[in-house]
Amino acid sequence: MERNRLWKTLASRAVYTAEPWVRVLDETLELPNGKVVPSYHRILLPDYSMVFPVLEDGRVLMIRSYRQGPGEIVLGFPGGGIDAGETPEAAAKRELREETGHSAERIVSLGAGLTGANVRGAKCHMYMALGCRKVAEPNSGDLEEQELLSLSRDELAAYLQENRFVILAYAAIAARALLEWKDR
Amino acid sequence: MERNRLWKTLASRAVYTAEPWVRVLDETLELPNGKVVPSYHRILLPDYSMVFPVLEDGRVLMIRSYRQGPGEIVLGFPGGGIDAGETPEAAAKRELREETGHSAERIVSLGAGLTGANVRGAKCHMYMALGCRKVAEPNSGDLEEQELLSLSRDELAAYLQENRFVILAYAAIAARALLEWKDR
Repeated sequence: MERNRLWKTLASRAVYTAEPWVRVLDETLELPNGKVVPSYHRILLPDYSMVFPVLEDGRVLMIRSYRQGPGEIVLGFPGGGIDAGETPEAAAKRELREETGHSAERIVSLGAGLTGANVRGAKCHMYMALGCRKVAEPNSGDLEEQELLSLSRDELAAYLQENRFVILAYAAIAARALLEWKDR
Repeated sequence: MERNRLWKTLASRAVYTAEPWVRVLDETLELPNGKVVPSYHRILLPDYSMVFPVLEDGRVLMIRSYRQGPGEIVLGFPGGGIDAGETPEAAAKRELREETGHSAERIVSLGAGLTGANVRGAKCHMYMALGCRKVAEPNSGDLEEQELLSLSRDELAAYLQENRFVILAYAAIAARALLEWKDR
């Protein structure tokens, strides 16, 4: 019954490729009712990990940096692409270390989700890193200049509830982590 | 100072276009330090609205439907593209009505965020719809077959905390709404 509701891919054409950054597929699909959709796009982007870092004093470590998506400087969290052969959790730890110079006592998964319900996009893996402390200088190698800062839990909750995040994944990990935290 | 940290677009080439679904740009950028990045991709997808519908009895109305992104049947929320000339809030109300046949007493914004920090992607506008009641039969015109169901607040919180959402935006709106709700 469930299986019958899945769509069938009749043909898949790569219409634009710039590995490893993006691959656009134009697909011909068959719906469960037999209807054929001649052109449906899928956009494959690299999966990534993102970290909600809680410092030893309970404050949340955050990053202010320029993001080309919105074209402005935004408040967010450390994260980045998963290297070949690397687990999402290892990527989270590596990005935390590279971007902030911090290492965590414990890492907890907050789930993972695709950024595109229809097109797929990227899979974003979210982690909460507890007991973070500075062990090195940041050295991300990223293009963006960045500034580290920390917010109290109440400051972060207010920032979120004032709808000030401009990147969906940042709002998602902040809300998810604040809920998890409340229940502990 | 802040302005100096923004990137400059030196050239923008549309390398793939399938309006209104997707436009891929390959851009040449200049960083604040003068370094030139010859090829940086932006992926422009249609903005959309998404609704967290709370029924009059306090249960949360949800949709189980096939999503081509993950290629499986997932639990999520009503939502869809914003029509030309339509506000995000009007789109949220329309999608709620079309996909579930429900109308809300009151709509509250839960913020908006881009699905891609680097590429842009789509802007996802999130709303909580309070006091929802059925006023018509669903008639979405979407490709997906769907099934309506409702979860209690505790059931939804458990679903989220067990990391069972597979679409980032669904996890984001659920977490954001549960936090908002807790504080009311």
